[in-house]
Amino acid sequence: MVEALIFDVFGTCVDWRSSVAREVATVLPEVDAEAFARAWRAEYDPAMARIREGARGYVPLEDLHLENLDSVARVFGVRVPDRDALNAAWERLDPWPDVIRGLKALKRLAIIAPCSNGSIALMTRLARYGGLPWDCILGADIARDYKPRPEVYLASCAALRLAPDRVMMVAAHNDDLFAARAVGLKTAFVPRPTEHGPGQSRDLCAESDWDIVAADFKDLSRRVAALQG
Amino acid sequence: MVEALIFDVFGTCVDWRSSVAREVATVLPEVDAEAFARAWRAEYDPAMARIREGARGYVPLEDLHLENLDSVARVFGVRVPDRDALNAAWERLDPWPDVIRGLKALKRLAIIAPCSNGSIALMTRLARYGGLPWDCILGADIARDYKPRPEVYLASCAALRLAPDRVMMVAAHNDDLFAARAVGLKTAFVPRPTEHGPGQSRDLCAESDWDIVAADFKDLSRRVAALQG
Repeated sequence: MVEALIFDVFGTCVDWRSSVAREVATVLPEVDAEAFARAWRAEYDPAMARIREGARGYVPLEDLHLENLDSVARVFGVRVPDRDALNAAWERLDPWPDVIRGLKALKRLAIIAPCSNGSIALMTRLARYGGLPWDCILGADIARDYKPRPEVYLASCAALRLAPDRVMMVAAHNDDLFAARAVGLKTAFVPRPTEHGPGQSRDLCAESDWDIVAADFKDLSRRVAALQG
Repeated sequence: MVEALIFDVFGTCVDWRSSVAREVATVLPEVDAEAFARAWRAEYDPAMARIREGARGYVPLEDLHLENLDSVARVFGVRVPDRDALNAAWERLDPWPDVIRGLKALKRLAIIAPCSNGSIALMTRLARYGGLPWDCILGADIARDYKPRPEVYLASCAALRLAPDRVMMVAAHNDDLFAARAVGLKTAFVPRPTEHGPGQSRDLCAESDWDIVAADFKDLSRRVAALQG
């Protein structure tokens, strides 16, 4: 019996690539906006890795995004007129078309919350922008660490006072699910084959026997309902 | 300019007294349910005081409620058949009649979140029960301390990455507002003159020049809108 569903957000719920590229195109018309957005995102994991490894204390994702924006702007040889304004592009990411309706259906079945590496502030603003109907915000800020560290999944379950096997992690990324399953959570995979663009080569399909493999959030809500009887 | 409104919940948003009494009456028909509910609530502040003073580490409110239920049951000389089930009465508190509509209007103007001594788990379940449309859950769990300790208000502002003067604390309790104002938050008072029953003697009106004094949440939403121009 699943009492809560917790979600990866960037890529799984929202299309960061075209949303960020759209804002880059407005502010920096001289660059390839898609390439800039992808390069910005490519700095994401290395920046968190230092914190996960303990080489740096916890810093919320907004601050990492801003540092990464500076690096990417240097590589592209551009000056960003208003760094904070462009950084806030990560608060204005469009949900994939199936997400809002799917989350509303899932919310009738269980608690729904993001378990993202985005901060409470970022996830709150993103939810208001896109209409994501979360019950609460969990994830990195709660644990003061970054996925896929086990603490992030466990702190999210603990914040709901639920045993991990009553909580299902939903993600479009197999690595996220391997990490969640390793600490006892249930798992659901939803593919997002264009997250990284038309040439995407990873996470095109489920790489393990996840508890649920769904086509989209509507299908996910049907399968969760079936699981709960 | 107020960017977020954070709310006391027990008493300010929900009527804990009649809601808890209703469940006590069902489970313990032999006791005076109103008196039992009030006695249970009377243990609340002393239990938190030990944690605020550092005599005990942070313990979520559900656990304090359960300990307090045991004390009160002893005083009333009754055995509670299912302690956890009755303790969950705190997850099923009815909102005051003006609250849901008022919060929906306020949500269009600013971020709205509880800044309660209830845990994330408790606030999440209470929101689902009553339909409280929070953007996120802040308060005691974020700070791992209890109001009126300044850390709870400041951690809630920090979680939203807002300076305290961009955040307004809403409460039916003057003490809560004095504590919030002391660390720089804006303040709004909404009276709940029957929170403790017909003979209530405190918090019947505003005891200072709070930034807003409103009749109810509908009036609050009009006043916040006027403040924001």
